[in-house]
Amino acid sequence: MYEGVVQDLIDELGRLPGVGPKSAQRIAFHLLQADPVDVRRLAQVLVEVKERVRFCAVCGNVAEEETCRICRDQRRDPSVICVVEESKDVVAVERTREFRGRYHVLGGAISPIDGIGPDDLRIRELMTRLADGVVTEVILATDPNLEGEATATYLTRLLRPMGLRVTRLASGLPVGGDLEYADEVTLGRAFEGRRSVE
Amino acid sequence: MYEGVVQDLIDELGRLPGVGPKSAQRIAFHLLQADPVDVRRLAQVLVEVKERVRFCAVCGNVAEEETCRICRDQRRDPSVICVVEESKDVVAVERTREFRGRYHVLGGAISPIDGIGPDDLRIRELMTRLADGVVTEVILATDPNLEGEATATYLTRLLRPMGLRVTRLASGLPVGGDLEYADEVTLGRAFEGRRSVE
Repeated sequence: MYEGVVQDLIDELGRLPGVGPKSAQRIAFHLLQADPVDVRRLAQVLVEVKERVRFCAVCGNVAEEETCRICRDQRRDPSVICVVEESKDVVAVERTREFRGRYHVLGGAISPIDGIGPDDLRIRELMTRLADGVVTEVILATDPNLEGEATATYLTRLLRPMGLRVTRLASGLPVGGDLEYADEVTLGRAFEGRRSVE
Repeated sequence: MYEGVVQDLIDELGRLPGVGPKSAQRIAFHLLQADPVDVRRLAQVLVEVKERVRFCAVCGNVAEEETCRICRDQRRDPSVICVVEESKDVVAVERTREFRGRYHVLGGAISPIDGIGPDDLRIRELMTRLADGVVTEVILATDPNLEGEATATYLTRLLRPMGLRVTRLASGLPVGGDLEYADEVTLGRAFEGRRSVE
């Protein structure tokens, strides 16, 4: 519908996740009217990200060098590994400042519907990391949904026989939430995991 | 939170309209995992759009040359001008295949709240186009909302004394809609604009 390159831009933007045809059009017109310097900076960072960013050879997290910032940090406890699905989960855990160990990014979760099995995840790499006996605890921090639970169950079966401590993040009521609005599964888990008050 | 260039990308994407921090992160990770060729093509089209696209010297529509495709098209009726707010409205009208005249893109609508007055729109350019007497009808196709109506009223006052036919797009029930769900203003307009059945 638009002249050449404007339509190209709308098409390219429409390929991004969560960007429908209307949003693509809106973003395209925003860019058409934006300062050329800003648009060139966005184009530049797109090129740079593909040139410079790779995935950490140890944990699979995003990295600008052979290994990521966390794997290079000697102050991080090498005896605990927190297993997550994606790099963005690393950021979520880091934000809590509760965890001082290392990570392992699986690159997804087991999902038969999407055709993702254990071999499609970085599970073999995890087993290799555990081989030298330095790691004593593996925290399974996959998402608390069907796929994440299935992945955690699969990993538990694999890791338990190795004599490691295998833990799973607690399920329960979100802090600041209303008990009234909690779904029954969450509320059930909160009962199951109840703790004595000191 | 992320390493250098990944955070830069999330920041740049988050500046786009309708892209919040979570979407920016999702798009960034999509791009990180995407084929480098695809990402480079997006970067390239961003640069090209700013280099090649400008606004038509006659009507204000997006154009890759001095004037836009529609203004250059000799088969379009030069006696009718359809006034719209944005280039995307040109595309919407073109899609109907109902209109064979020319356009005039105002670049927005009068909105005191946003500090947009008549002088911020391409109204002076419209008056210049009307000076030679070729145009006999001006169709006001601004949005049927507060700002669009205010702009249409303003233009009507300006154009009527020039002896032109000034028309406004019909308001009424959307085709395929339910009368029951129409808001009272739209339903009121539909009554007001009712027509005899032949």
